Amino acid sequence: MEDKSHQEHKKYAADIDSISKAQARIKPYVHITPVLSSETLNSIAGKSLFFKCECFQKGGAFKFRGASNAIFSLDDEQAAKGVVTHSSGNHAAALALAAKLRGIPSYIVIPKNAPKCKVENVKRYRGQVIWSEANMQSREETANKVLHETGATLVHPYNDGRIISGQGTLSLEFLDQVPQLDTLVVPISGGGLISGVAIGAKSINPAIRVLAAEPKGADDAAQSKASGRIITLARTNTIADGLRASLGDLTWPVVRDLVDGIITVEDKEIVEAMRYCYEILKVAIEPSGAIGLAAVLSDSFKRNPDFKDARNIGIVLSGGNVDLGVLWESLNNR
Amino acid sequence: MEDKSHQEHKKYAADIDSISKAQARIKPYVHITPVLSSETLNSIAGKSLFFKCECFQKGGAFKFRGASNAIFSLDDEQAAKGVVTHSSGNHAAALALAAKLRGIPSYIVIPKNAPKCKVENVKRYRGQVIWSEANMQSREETANKVLHETGATLVHPYNDGRIISGQGTLSLEFLDQVPQLDTLVVPISGGGLISGVAIGAKSINPAIRVLAAEPKGADDAAQSKASGRIITLARTNTIADGLRASLGDLTWPVVRDLVDGIITVEDKEIVEAMRYCYEILKVAIEPSGAIGLAAVLSDSFKRNPDFKDARNIGIVLSGGNVDLGVLWESLNNR
Repeated sequence: MEDKSHQEHKKYAADIDSISKAQARIKPYVHITPVLSSETLNSIAGKSLFFKCECFQKGGAFKFRGASNAIFSLDDEQAAKGVVTHSSGNHAAALALAAKLRGIPSYIVIPKNAPKCKVENVKRYRGQVIWSEANMQSREETANKVLHETGATLVHPYNDGRIISGQGTLSLEFLDQVPQLDTLVVPISGGGLISGVAIGAKSINPAIRVLAAEPKGADDAAQSKASGRIITLARTNTIADGLRASLGDLTWPVVRDLVDGIITVEDKEIVEAMRYCYEILKVAIEPSGAIGLAAVLSDSFKRNPDFKDARNIGIVLSGGNVDLGVLWESLNNR
Repeated sequence: MEDKSHQEHKKYAADIDSISKAQARIKPYVHITPVLSSETLNSIAGKSLFFKCECFQKGGAFKFRGASNAIFSLDDEQAAKGVVTHSSGNHAAALALAAKLRGIPSYIVIPKNAPKCKVENVKRYRGQVIWSEANMQSREETANKVLHETGATLVHPYNDGRIISGQGTLSLEFLDQVPQLDTLVVPISGGGLISGVAIGAKSINPAIRVLAAEPKGADDAAQSKASGRIITLARTNTIADGLRASLGDLTWPVVRDLVDGIITVEDKEIVEAMRYCYEILKVAIEPSGAIGLAAVLSDSFKRNPDFKDARNIGIVLSGGNVDLGVLWESLNNR
């Protein structure tokens, strides 16, 4: 039976060992992010909510956990040639920052529709920006071109065991800070964060419930779960610019097996959650980062009998990189 | 010599004993607020900055420390009659919340020009709002009227030993979290916060430097220090709505004796600091709350030879209650 359990873990691109090793590896570089709570929001939700503030992570998002794990996993020879990635923003900035800390070059392929503040973060951390068209094919082709020219190592934003393990460190830290958590609500896009979190959290507490939060306008994960295979959307339509990616072949098995449900929310619910974060929690959050709160406050969560017994809910506020103008427009045009 | 030291402490409305007692008294009710830091802001400042995030305190500001100390200091008979205060906002909400937690009524006199979100906070905590004109005379007269009608206890926003002791708990907590602090920068208005912080911090580390940050358009504390007596301004003009009050007879002696300098800043510097808090720290802050960072980034701080040796600077981000519309207008109209 022990062998079976061991084999189970090995089914995925990360396991509790790789996550624990990642935690030790990145410890000198990452912030231990605070957990906030609010009686007002508890009253609104009818639950005890604990907010893991990854918006305060270096680079402004959880992405630095995975990026620093990937960068500091490289041997010296690999590292010297630098790293390359394509990303709409937070992974890009995180990788540039981790590369800067290791003193190696980073080549960042950014789609033309990326938020301005996220591009500025890449430049601030001395990443070399290479523009692509705003579709996945152009992003990947451009990244491959850079890769062949430089010999740099590709660090995919989510479909990479080192990234999944790095993001998983969040769950070890969170359960250490709030051991009584019975439910985690985690944004889902490509699935790197929730894969690492689900593997990590369920290794510590197999009974914990792990739920994904996804925009209705980019609900590929919900459709994938429903149909039992990876569904890719031809187009997405959501204010949550960080949640438009599709699941990868390394993240899908974890989402399929270990994620207990996917809550889809409307953009207007995301904006309302952003406002709560701003006005009540006093935390500056991007739309993608606020979706976990939006999910918990949504009717589809509240009315789901499966979630009735959730009492102590951990919500990952995953990122804070928002253009102030975009925030203001979205709050005003609800 | 010991007697003299004892007498020194007794000169003021609070001392390390009253602050320590306050800390024990309010411990069940207050948040231990996190300390954030940012390499980016350290680079900009050329110093190591540590941000004590009182915007995450209950009620959204440090004021809950003093308010809860005052409320839970009352004997049952006094308490049953409730409390009354006049305040432009954060003290009002804090007192209402503390009263709600003790289950007693609170009567809150609010000037007509108070920010909307601060009034909403008072109502959220079930404070009974009584409007006054936007000047100190009308505020005090209205409060006195309520006081005589109800028998409630007046809890002044700052000129009160219980309040000063409560606010002082911030310094004990901060120095416990970051023992290497050599300088503290604290917003000053009526002086309750900085009095408590100066007494508390210097009791733990007599060598620590305590600096006040004040808007140029409400620089009564700087003028008072310069002239050696309390100066009251006929009018003030600043975006920092929480920093318009004048020193009281209990706070002035502490400011006179224990505050090592007052840094005055322009409103545009406050707005720039707000933007940094938002975009880099990811913290939603009100203008008054951001003034400590504005002070540290100001030329008058950087060029002052007295502050050259400041290395580890603790900045109190004192409150986060800002109307989103006001924030946006101020950021856009710099």
